[in-house]
Amino acid sequence: MHRYSDLMRFMGRKTDKTSKKDMKIRVFVYGREKYEEKELSDMDALKEYRDSEDVIWIDVQGGYSRADIERIGETFALHPSAVRNSLLSGQRPSYEELEDHIFIIVSQVYVKNDRIEREQIGIFLKKNVLITIQQRPGDVFEPLRKKIRENTGKIRTKGGDFLLFSLMREILDHYFRVLESLGIRIDNIEDRVLKSPGPDIMRSLHELRREILFLKHMVWPMREVIEGLYRDETGIISKDTKKYLRGARDIALQMIEIAETYRDMVSSMTDIYLSSLSYRTNEIMKILTIIATIFIPLTFITGLYGMNFSNMPELYWYWGYPTALLGMLAIALVMLFYFRRKGWM
Amino acid sequence: MHRYSDLMRFMGRKTDKTSKKDMKIRVFVYGREKYEEKELSDMDALKEYRDSEDVIWIDVQGGYSRADIERIGETFALHPSAVRNSLLSGQRPSYEELEDHIFIIVSQVYVKNDRIEREQIGIFLKKNVLITIQQRPGDVFEPLRKKIRENTGKIRTKGGDFLLFSLMREILDHYFRVLESLGIRIDNIEDRVLKSPGPDIMRSLHELRREILFLKHMVWPMREVIEGLYRDETGIISKDTKKYLRGARDIALQMIEIAETYRDMVSSMTDIYLSSLSYRTNEIMKILTIIATIFIPLTFITGLYGMNFSNMPELYWYWGYPTALLGMLAIALVMLFYFRRKGWM
Amino acid sequence: MHRYSDLMRFMGRKTDKTSKKDMKIRVFVYGREKYEEKELSDMDALKEYRDSEDVIWIDVQGGYSRADIERIGETFALHPSAVRNSLLSGQRPSYEELEDHIFIIVSQVYVKNDRIEREQIGIFLKKNVLITIQQRPGDVFEPLRKKIRENTGKIRTKGGDFLLFSLMREILDHYFRVLESLGIRIDNIEDRVLKSPGPDIMRSLHELRREILFLKHMVWPMREVIEGLYRDETGIISKDTKKYLRGARDIALQMIEIAETYRDMVSSMTDIYLSSLSYRTNEIMKILTIIATIFIPLTFITGLYGMNFSNMPELYWYWGYPTALLGMLAIALVMLFYFRRKGWM
Amino acid sequence: MHRYSDLMRFMGRKTDKTSKKDMKIRVFVYGREKYEEKELSDMDALKEYRDSEDVIWIDVQGGYSRADIERIGETFALHPSAVRNSLLSGQRPSYEELEDHIFIIVSQVYVKNDRIEREQIGIFLKKNVLITIQQRPGDVFEPLRKKIRENTGKIRTKGGDFLLFSLMREILDHYFRVLESLGIRIDNIEDRVLKSPGPDIMRSLHELRREILFLKHMVWPMREVIEGLYRDETGIISKDTKKYLRGARDIALQMIEIAETYRDMVSSMTDIYLSSLSYRTNEIMKILTIIATIFIPLTFITGLYGMNFSNMPELYWYWGYPTALLGMLAIALVMLFYFRRKGWM
Amino acid sequence: MHRYSDLMRFMGRKTDKTSKKDMKIRVFVYGREKYEEKELSDMDALKEYRDSEDVIWIDVQGGYSRADIERIGETFALHPSAVRNSLLSGQRPSYEELEDHIFIIVSQVYVKNDRIEREQIGIFLKKNVLITIQQRPGDVFEPLRKKIRENTGKIRTKGGDFLLFSLMREILDHYFRVLESLGIRIDNIEDRVLKSPGPDIMRSLHELRREILFLKHMVWPMREVIEGLYRDETGIISKDTKKYLRGARDIALQMIEIAETYRDMVSSMTDIYLSSLSYRTNEIMKILTIIATIFIPLTFITGLYGMNFSNMPELYWYWGYPTALLGMLAIALVMLFYFRRKGWM
Repeated sequence: MHRYSDLMRFMGRKTDKTSKKDMKIRVFVYGREKYEEKELSDMDALKEYRDSEDVIWIDVQGGYSRADIERIGETFALHPSAVRNSLLSGQRPSYEELEDHIFIIVSQVYVKNDRIEREQIGIFLKKNVLITIQQRPGDVFEPLRKKIRENTGKIRTKGGDFLLFSLMREILDHYFRVLESLGIRIDNIEDRVLKSPGPDIMRSLHELRREILFLKHMVWPMREVIEGLYRDETGIISKDTKKYLRGARDIALQMIEIAETYRDMVSSMTDIYLSSLSYRTNEIMKILTIIATIFIPLTFITGLYGMNFSNMPELYWYWGYPTALLGMLAIALVMLFYFRRKGWM
Repeated sequence: MHRYSDLMRFMGRKTDKTSKKDMKIRVFVYGREKYEEKELSDMDALKEYRDSEDVIWIDVQGGYSRADIERIGETFALHPSAVRNSLLSGQRPSYEELEDHIFIIVSQVYVKNDRIEREQIGIFLKKNVLITIQQRPGDVFEPLRKKIRENTGKIRTKGGDFLLFSLMREILDHYFRVLESLGIRIDNIEDRVLKSPGPDIMRSLHELRREILFLKHMVWPMREVIEGLYRDETGIISKDTKKYLRGARDIALQMIEIAETYRDMVSSMTDIYLSSLSYRTNEIMKILTIIATIFIPLTFITGLYGMNFSNMPELYWYWGYPTALLGMLAIALVMLFYFRRKGWM
Repeated sequence: MHRYSDLMRFMGRKTDKTSKKDMKIRVFVYGREKYEEKELSDMDALKEYRDSEDVIWIDVQGGYSRADIERIGETFALHPSAVRNSLLSGQRPSYEELEDHIFIIVSQVYVKNDRIEREQIGIFLKKNVLITIQQRPGDVFEPLRKKIRENTGKIRTKGGDFLLFSLMREILDHYFRVLESLGIRIDNIEDRVLKSPGPDIMRSLHELRREILFLKHMVWPMREVIEGLYRDETGIISKDTKKYLRGARDIALQMIEIAETYRDMVSSMTDIYLSSLSYRTNEIMKILTIIATIFIPLTFITGLYGMNFSNMPELYWYWGYPTALLGMLAIALVMLFYFRRKGWM
Repeated sequence: MHRYSDLMRFMGRKTDKTSKKDMKIRVFVYGREKYEEKELSDMDALKEYRDSEDVIWIDVQGGYSRADIERIGETFALHPSAVRNSLLSGQRPSYEELEDHIFIIVSQVYVKNDRIEREQIGIFLKKNVLITIQQRPGDVFEPLRKKIRENTGKIRTKGGDFLLFSLMREILDHYFRVLESLGIRIDNIEDRVLKSPGPDIMRSLHELRREILFLKHMVWPMREVIEGLYRDETGIISKDTKKYLRGARDIALQMIEIAETYRDMVSSMTDIYLSSLSYRTNEIMKILTIIATIFIPLTFITGLYGMNFSNMPELYWYWGYPTALLGMLAIALVMLFYFRRKGWM
Repeated sequence: MHRYSDLMRFMGRKTDKTSKKDMKIRVFVYGREKYEEKELSDMDALKEYRDSEDVIWIDVQGGYSRADIERIGETFALHPSAVRNSLLSGQRPSYEELEDHIFIIVSQVYVKNDRIEREQIGIFLKKNVLITIQQRPGDVFEPLRKKIRENTGKIRTKGGDFLLFSLMREILDHYFRVLESLGIRIDNIEDRVLKSPGPDIMRSLHELRREILFLKHMVWPMREVIEGLYRDETGIISKDTKKYLRGARDIALQMIEIAETYRDMVSSMTDIYLSSLSYRTNEIMKILTIIATIFIPLTFITGLYGMNFSNMPELYWYWGYPTALLGMLAIALVMLFYFRRKGWM
């Protein structure tokens, strides 16, 4: 076992596991007229849903054991390699057609304590049975559950494929929220960069860039998954649902474009910060040069008449001192005029 | 409901809604010999246009309610998912074939108070009936309406697909105007960068880059929409109109190329500004170094003969003072000669 | 009507028109044994060429009116949308197959007064009749005309498609000359950058980059046009001519590669210039630091013994002054030794 | 024979050879119930495995002669050109179908003494016979051998194609470890860059970038090899194994994305370091400018009253000295106030 | 006729011609048992080879006239447009199928006097007759000729297509040598950049980048030529030879990747050099600032007590001078402590 770097964790290779006792299996059974919601603790109870006509959503969250999931796989005759994959963490979002069912892996993201959190979800769809396997308790699907419970929208009038689309929609929606929170951070940093850039700006920009990269690398395969569902040829996804998926794909595309734009903005702000540093060095140098260039020659003159040579006739002239003062003034004025003409003052 | 960042708004995710009372439905009915223009307030009045042989353009602007649009959808048997999409703001431009009609979403842009404004338009085309759904009152189609009214050009001799092309043409035309206004801004900034670059240049370049990115990300999907219309296989777009669409696609391509060139120019100007900063720092340092290098040794000499040692025979030589002066002059001349040979003066 | 930016003009959106009186229609009629060249002023005279067996090249230059071109279109039964396009300026180079004829738009470039000039040409090819529509008098085809007149090369033994290829070849040739002139400018700037870079270098590099971008964006669609001709399926372009077009396409590809290389060179030179600025600032700072670091401590010592305290016994020592001088010399030497060891001198 | 550069060696063009005496041929023969492991020294002994029903893994490591490998090739009727290629070092990973067998070349990587080491492996698969040809002793397959010996996992229940997949899986796993070790290095450098960047940072970043490039250029063709196996049409790779290969391909894709992200992070850190240098120069200049700007005028004043003019009435005023001191204090305070208002202190 | 820029020449547009008297036609005739080598001066002598069963390699080097090559073309019934192309210099590498023969243009490269030289070769392959047309005497095929003479390797047992592959292999081999020589230069420059970067580094990096670009632009079309041969559908290239070509294509791919890596290394080194300049300026500024900041206040104090006010009681205190000295020492120590704490010393 070896240490994992932050970046690897960031890319989703290693996510913390939760302990067994946190496991929760929730089952939703619904149809046009009907709605039922149960929390199961016994895997065998799942069997009764095998031949149901209603839409069944079995949601497994956190702390499951390998055996539990394999049991579910057997109950619904899911492909072993897909079941195995759903158990591994750090998977790249992917889409797989398996004879009479579909298996997809996606990542949900949300902002928690100002950090982007990521959680993998494995989803099986077999006719009207949809199984979601989540690694941690808590997810982004609460609004959808409310819609099912309260029968708002079209969700209760449609099949399992529409439920899958609705899950995707919720996930994408949270991507958008994360994108928005990044957008707000960019706006704030932009303000700081344009007004009062400090040395910590670069750090903020670096972190921002890191998170934009992270998000972009996560949206990209999401688009592939949606594309896969859209092009599905097994007939599991109905033509009607595909119309909706089309819109979801456009959203994913738009997110990629926004992430690209964000990245460009961050790199533009880096340029601004660097140029503002150069500009300020420039300004500082100007002040130093003006002061030094005016006073160094003057100081030289005072040094001149501070010399102790016995034979310095100027020292004994009556107007010697005022003449020297006037000479110095003249030099200072010429210098000032020169700098003004150069546009430095 | 959460706050939206400027960038998100920029990408068109959230546009301000206008209130119900601003809604306007304008209907144009025209043919080779015929032309009629009405402002409707009752949705039911639309029914009479259902089986017309003429070209019908129904233009809904601002402040519509969900119910209104759904009513229109029912009247003309439009696909519900498309109708739903036309109601959402912040959509990516897209093209969809729906059995006997086409639905496209595009974005029109115009410059208003020196800012690029963007507004989404949903367009349905079913045989000769074209329905445009605009989120705000005011659009870029006034010149086209004038052409219909005054029967200039070919518009009155052609069908609904040509009307769609004409709308696209007007929209693209405004993209071009926005591109041009950006071009003029680039020309102006170029002048400033090459002549008298100040610290605010970076800000202008940053804003320019932002708007170029914005425009580019909007033209790109426009090209896809036009491509979609061009490749249409439903027969709604006639072969003749496709010839015209070809030209429109070339224009979109050219705009993308121009936007790319703009972006390159902006990044080239950033380089120029940074180099001019470096160059000026360099010049300032030269002046400081010349002054300091000449006077510091001289001041040292004056300090030398300003010392109060009792035993400094030079001080009492008759030619001591003139010799010191000449020595200092010689040092200064040697220094000046050195700097001149180095090309600093 | 609104103002056009330099960049837009650069991309060919707006080209100056010439007045009617400059119009010139020149007709070349040639075959293996035959050659005729006329200047026409009457459009009706074109009709006689309609069914000729010889190759006919009708060249319209500058100052034509819309009606003139439409008349030509009718005479030879050309597609109206293509005729309309040939009238518009600022078109992107494109290739179009129109039943029994081909219409292409290309841009010819040439260097005039050290600036790259661009001029659009519309070309129709219908069997052996080739019509070129040029916006301004003067073009790059003079060498080709000479070949036809003097019957050099294969031009007189081949058909209209070979004439089209020959025109493309001449145009590409001039692109190459422009590329060469840019190459010579790059060589010159390279010399200056490596030997004596001044502040105006950035401006030259900026302009160079602009023209390279311009050229690249013009060559790219040229390649598409040639590709289109090469893949022509109407049979207008013979298999034999396609062999030649293949070479033309390779040339276009090579030009794009050269333009890419040029751009890379320009950006490399920008780096060199910026680094040379940094290096020079560095050198200047070294000189300043050496002088200041040596003399500031010495001046401090002279200041020390210039103080007027009554009780400074050193001042009255016999060897006081020489000791002070030697001490200062020692300090200076130590400093010099230090700087030499640091490699600054 | 000519010298090889480090970079070439890096890209795998020249790897050190090991001497004959290090050669080792190990044979694994296994099935569901059966397992045998032998070390061979005689090539002829291989013949007995030719028609075995079990899975045979013949592993040749280091120090083989050309003749040895050709002998193996003849024994199993392998294609001569593939055998020849397996002998050459510095090959690009590739996939080849050869009638009844497959030949692939891949590179294994591992970290040894903090350096990424690379070693080429040639793999033949002919039904259940798999032959690996490694250039040096030692590899990344030990965990797999242990699985075969101890019959853990599915390896003993599957055929030769699954063994091939398992080898690929082990190799990819080591790529991931290398990626992780790079990730940890990036984390460490990030710490240093953000806290206390020294001049050696650039060197570390340069080396890091070099290794990231190296890894990326090695993962890329790995993906092609896996893709090739996945699309295999000879039937050597079973449908079941392809399911697993799909996952392997996703891993390769993810690695490429991670490498891209790493590269971006390194370039972001370069920016941070450069900006921190600029910032520090800025800070140093500020201190110098503050000190110089305050004291240079003051020193001028002291110089003024150190002049030896006979006629300087101020010198004899009773309050002359205190007034001068107060004046200087006032100037210093004004300057300090000015700098404070500029935000420099 | 106009001047050619260095860059154009670099891209192979204009190569120096050699005079007629240097022309050499060498003919190799070989088979499994047979080998003959002749130097021809008479073109007519070529006819006898027309119907030979052996492999014939006709190698024309330098100083040929147009007529000579056309004569060869007629003798072997080669396509006129291909013959014409083989006469032109500055062609892009290309592959062409011409009924019963193949014509390819490639570029060979070699290092001569530390410069990369390039020479175009036109190659015709018609069954077993291979004709190479080289612009200058001297080439990279000497090792191959030796193999034919001494019957080493498989060359004598195979046909004309294998000879073509062998030529390609030799050419690619020389590309690799050039890549290696660039790699060694990069290693050397890397050493200098990391140890003692001088101002001439940028020039070396610029030249290196230029040559890498040059090489990359030459390898790219080579890959296309090999790809073309590999996909040949005329049957001129045997299936067996295609196996070998596959390896050649992998080599070309690898070279492109290496060139990309080289380019990245050069740009990374540019960054290092620029950062080292910034770092050194920083160091220089530190020294200046330390010296100036310590001594400027001290010098001010000495100036203070060098003033000639009559009423300066400190001057007459017994401990005045030592107190002043101690005060100055204290100030210096405080300053030194401050700089040490800032980490500057």
